[in-house]
Amino acid sequence: MATLVVPDSVPTPLEDAGKIRKAVQEFSFTLNLYSGLGTDEKALISVLGHRNAVQRKLIRQAYEEHYKENLIKRLETELSGHFEKAMYRWMPDPVERDALFAHLALKGQNYKVIAEIACELPPDALLAVKRAYQSCYKTSLEEDVASHTSGDIRKILVGLVGTYRYDGNEVNPNVASSEAKILQDAIGGKHFNHEEVIRIVSTRSKAQLNATFNRYKDVHGASLTKKLLGDPSDEFLAILRTTVRCITDPIKYFEKVVRHALTKAGTDEDALTRVIVRHAEKDLKEIKELYYKRNSVTLAKSVAKETSGDYEAFLLTLLEGH
Amino acid sequence: MATLVVPDSVPTPLEDAGKIRKAVQEFSFTLNLYSGLGTDEKALISVLGHRNAVQRKLIRQAYEEHYKENLIKRLETELSGHFEKAMYRWMPDPVERDALFAHLALKGQNYKVIAEIACELPPDALLAVKRAYQSCYKTSLEEDVASHTSGDIRKILVGLVGTYRYDGNEVNPNVASSEAKILQDAIGGKHFNHEEVIRIVSTRSKAQLNATFNRYKDVHGASLTKKLLGDPSDEFLAILRTTVRCITDPIKYFEKVVRHALTKAGTDEDALTRVIVRHAEKDLKEIKELYYKRNSVTLAKSVAKETSGDYEAFLLTLLEGH
Repeated sequence: MATLVVPDSVPTPLEDAGKIRKAVQEFSFTLNLYSGLGTDEKALISVLGHRNAVQRKLIRQAYEEHYKENLIKRLETELSGHFEKAMYRWMPDPVERDALFAHLALKGQNYKVIAEIACELPPDALLAVKRAYQSCYKTSLEEDVASHTSGDIRKILVGLVGTYRYDGNEVNPNVASSEAKILQDAIGGKHFNHEEVIRIVSTRSKAQLNATFNRYKDVHGASLTKKLLGDPSDEFLAILRTTVRCITDPIKYFEKVVRHALTKAGTDEDALTRVIVRHAEKDLKEIKELYYKRNSVTLAKSVAKETSGDYEAFLLTLLEGH
Repeated sequence: MATLVVPDSVPTPLEDAGKIRKAVQEFSFTLNLYSGLGTDEKALISVLGHRNAVQRKLIRQAYEEHYKENLIKRLETELSGHFEKAMYRWMPDPVERDALFAHLALKGQNYKVIAEIACELPPDALLAVKRAYQSCYKTSLEEDVASHTSGDIRKILVGLVGTYRYDGNEVNPNVASSEAKILQDAIGGKHFNHEEVIRIVSTRSKAQLNATFNRYKDVHGASLTKKLLGDPSDEFLAILRTTVRCITDPIKYFEKVVRHALTKAGTDEDALTRVIVRHAEKDLKEIKELYYKRNSVTLAKSVAKETSGDYEAFLLTLLEGH
């Protein structure tokens, strides 16, 4: 479930656009006098941190129509730091946002994020992201992934973003059995990058993969992810782990991503922003609950401890609704 | 353009279904007495060989509703040989038909056909075929291709069926230049299966590939396809040639397929049926015209020479409209 809180009675898109205009203009006019006061950011958060994707789109349209400028570009000019990045990622439609995350991941060579997006989303949602990617960047996600990468990383990522997985619940127990054996033979021998491992995880349906992974666990007494631990600098292995985790239990995976982002020396704001912004409108509540269960402290408290200023205020608004 | 001829005034779907019912029933009743007379096949051809995809679908529905049986299954029982195969492939919707051809190609290990379908169709049409495939077979085309193949053939085919190519006309001349060079380096050294060759042909947009192939030709004075000739038993190379040909000039490619099907010792009926049935409603006219230009004989005349009976009559109906 979502954590985003939208008030019962919402102003019209044009009224919201007016408040935002006031906030960004005041900010500009007062910049020389009271630089850094941050009052305008609060106004922005109080509006945009409480509107869902459809409402934000209508606000963007009303703003552009009325003030003859692109709201996202204006915000980019006016804001800065992690708060600007978070707002820039919050504003687009979910599919355009994921296209943006995929594009940024390629630019920053943060390839795990590509696996995260490709494996977490249902097949038709991934397809919608690929369409948005083409419309934004005039190239396909597949060709950009393929031309930025090479070797095993290319093989697995092109498979993951390319396959339009079957989305039905039918499972073939013979395939589960035979492919659990193939995985065991390859992974037992530490051949993580075996052609067959890549084929299985990148093309089989999620229902089939869960059956295969369960079969693996039944026979070998340990989950597949436990067997995928190894050299932390092995990027292919990290992508493979992300793939398996996002397919078997995405909530557990994303809890781990925020936990690592918050506990590592020097907070990983990019990962923290990504999880909160991408999930606030869908399943951040489940991620929060698991976080509390796992860490005996609320996610909000951890976020408040590791972040500050408008960035903190914005993340807490998305997380807690206030 | 299509070669299929639909009369100006078409009976209702139920009237057509009635004629077909009569034809298949007469056939069954008279089978013991006049086995092989073939008069009923003529009636079938005179109806179904002159109806477009939408009309055939309405006939199938009317038949099923009225006679409580599946028309395609009934035809399968009643007919035989190449005529049955051709009718069985003619009857479905174009996307279901291509899903069927892909499925048959995998069963028969005729992998060139997978490349043919993946590269000839526009990206959204390929996607529709993949959806039809899932709905018919409860698995994805990608996983079936991947699990039936291995090595380089798997790499190129999974790339071809997986990629949702960018369909725009934008071309990057720098990419054309650098990737023409990559192709030259790999193919000049006979490394046809080089990872980069597979990446380029399977992920780039058709517009980009045509720009890249033209650049290749400008620099090297010969077309890429000319450089892809080699051991005729090399299946990977055959798939790569099919890929390049279907992207650069599908009409020329299909003319060649029918020419080879008709001229080889023992006619390749499967290939002949495939081209005629798949193209009768779209661009068989262009294929016919090129065939005449290239061979100084009409395609109809060649088909009549190499085929016989109801199969011949049906193909000629689709080719010539009579």
